[in-house]
Amino acid sequence: ETLPPITANSADPFIQHFRERTEQLLEKKLTEQPAGDPRLQEAMAYSLINGGKRIRALLVYAGATAIQEEYGPLTDAAAIAIECIHAYSLIHDDLPAMDDDALRRGKPTCHIAFDEATAILAGDALQTLAFECLSTVPAEAVDPQTQLAMVRRLAVAGGYRGMVAGQAIDMAAINGEPDIEQLSHMHRLKTGALISASVGLGALSTRADDAQLSALADYSRAIGLAFQIQDDILDVTADTRILGKQQGSDTEQNKLTFVSLLGLEEARAWANRLRTEALQALAGFDRRADALRYLAAYVVKRAY
Amino acid sequence: ETLPPITANSADPFIQHFRERTEQLLEKKLTEQPAGDPRLQEAMAYSLINGGKRIRALLVYAGATAIQEEYGPLTDAAAIAIECIHAYSLIHDDLPAMDDDALRRGKPTCHIAFDEATAILAGDALQTLAFECLSTVPAEAVDPQTQLAMVRRLAVAGGYRGMVAGQAIDMAAINGEPDIEQLSHMHRLKTGALISASVGLGALSTRADDAQLSALADYSRAIGLAFQIQDDILDVTADTRILGKQQGSDTEQNKLTFVSLLGLEEARAWANRLRTEALQALAGFDRRADALRYLAAYVVKRAY
Repeated sequence: ETLPPITANSADPFIQHFRERTEQLLEKKLTEQPAGDPRLQEAMAYSLINGGKRIRALLVYAGATAIQEEYGPLTDAAAIAIECIHAYSLIHDDLPAMDDDALRRGKPTCHIAFDEATAILAGDALQTLAFECLSTVPAEAVDPQTQLAMVRRLAVAGGYRGMVAGQAIDMAAINGEPDIEQLSHMHRLKTGALISASVGLGALSTRADDAQLSALADYSRAIGLAFQIQDDILDVTADTRILGKQQGSDTEQNKLTFVSLLGLEEARAWANRLRTEALQALAGFDRRADALRYLAAYVVKRAY
Repeated sequence: ETLPPITANSADPFIQHFRERTEQLLEKKLTEQPAGDPRLQEAMAYSLINGGKRIRALLVYAGATAIQEEYGPLTDAAAIAIECIHAYSLIHDDLPAMDDDALRRGKPTCHIAFDEATAILAGDALQTLAFECLSTVPAEAVDPQTQLAMVRRLAVAGGYRGMVAGQAIDMAAINGEPDIEQLSHMHRLKTGALISASVGLGALSTRADDAQLSALADYSRAIGLAFQIQDDILDVTADTRILGKQQGSDTEQNKLTFVSLLGLEEARAWANRLRTEALQALAGFDRRADALRYLAAYVVKRAY
């Protein structure tokens, strides 16, 4: 399959193509099997197929095609697995005991649209579904060692040494001492681990070598942090309608953010430096990495 | 390694041996890596290493050794993965939005001992850890196709067509119409799916063939339901102190149970019939399946 054209300045066809592909794969995955409980499945679909930006899935495809243009079923599996993990984490983060958010992407959050028990369970089941996606690629199509390495990579990134640890630190850190190092550490786990896993799983799916994986890890670390800084910037600058969630909610909850610690201008400057770092990490890659280059700019420039 | 002696009437050495092995493996797994957040890890350990009966881990080992006595690292991985899934499901089931239980195995439940956010996250991370366990067995030690099949088996059993669906149906069914078929269906998903997966993962880990897996599926279906019937019996007959949770809590919450629908005597008779069915399913197995035979009796006779 020919990839849509892309340059470092325009990746719209690439983004549109892989966003649509991700939506189709997610819908197919959720509906191909009869569920044990229709309401549970409805709640999972509500949170999974909801007009998200699919940045993580795009990073999977960009990571894969940076290595070789012929991506395969393992790349697709990684893209939807990552989106399942991301969707589950948002459902649980929004719960009353956590961030207690009522609005997400302009719609009531899962526990508001359904109920709290259903939201907890929908999140639980979406996490399980991620591992089902990664492990159900027909074995004849792929190398099983690679596939297992991908399961392991996702489990490490998503667990108590990764994403969940970041959320736990975030919960404990409300009203804590301002400390830029701790805030960065928290976000490296909370959002960075999964963003790195996105690029990493994509690259693994097209058999990247260790040197490539290492360069992509540097790239991901930079854009993961840039992504969060931009999130904090948007919380104070964007419109609630465009943002799809309550603007200023971080400030209201007295959360530490990069903006509250550094101010808007310094936060913007840091995000731009991180973008440059990300591009430098890709110096050894040819034009196949242009999607990654574009996405590095995208995470810093995005308006929502 | 020589297996401890076992007959259909006495499996104490087998049970003790594999319980201890499971505890050691779980402790090692949780402490071998530095966690991202000490309090999160503490909550995970609190709920994971808590004097549970380890019936599911025992079923993994019994399922494995029913096929061949030389079990290996994949069997160990399955035993602890299953216990991680079980522990996570208990934490989430106990939450205020779910069963709202304050006591579990004689100790405060996770959200009481810690807080609700930490309990949600500890459950989330224990689920992830289960998949990490299954996927981190050194590849040279095992067949990667088998390992992937095990990941897939656990994901299907634990997800929206298995355990989580059962819990969702259970939540919706409180105060519902009494219907023995629906109650059985709910429990086949809620507890049965993971019990079947325990035996199935054990057997997969020692390369069971399809006929063996099919017979073991029949065995597991029977003991899974028997297990739940005995749970319901214990809720009305056992002592709170021995049970480790509030005796009579099902009755108090007006939950449908096998005892409320059938009465105590009929429920006991059904559990015994299921035990017989389980033993019949093992007719084609030799004495290596004695641990499974013993456990079929154990689930019906246990006092807590």
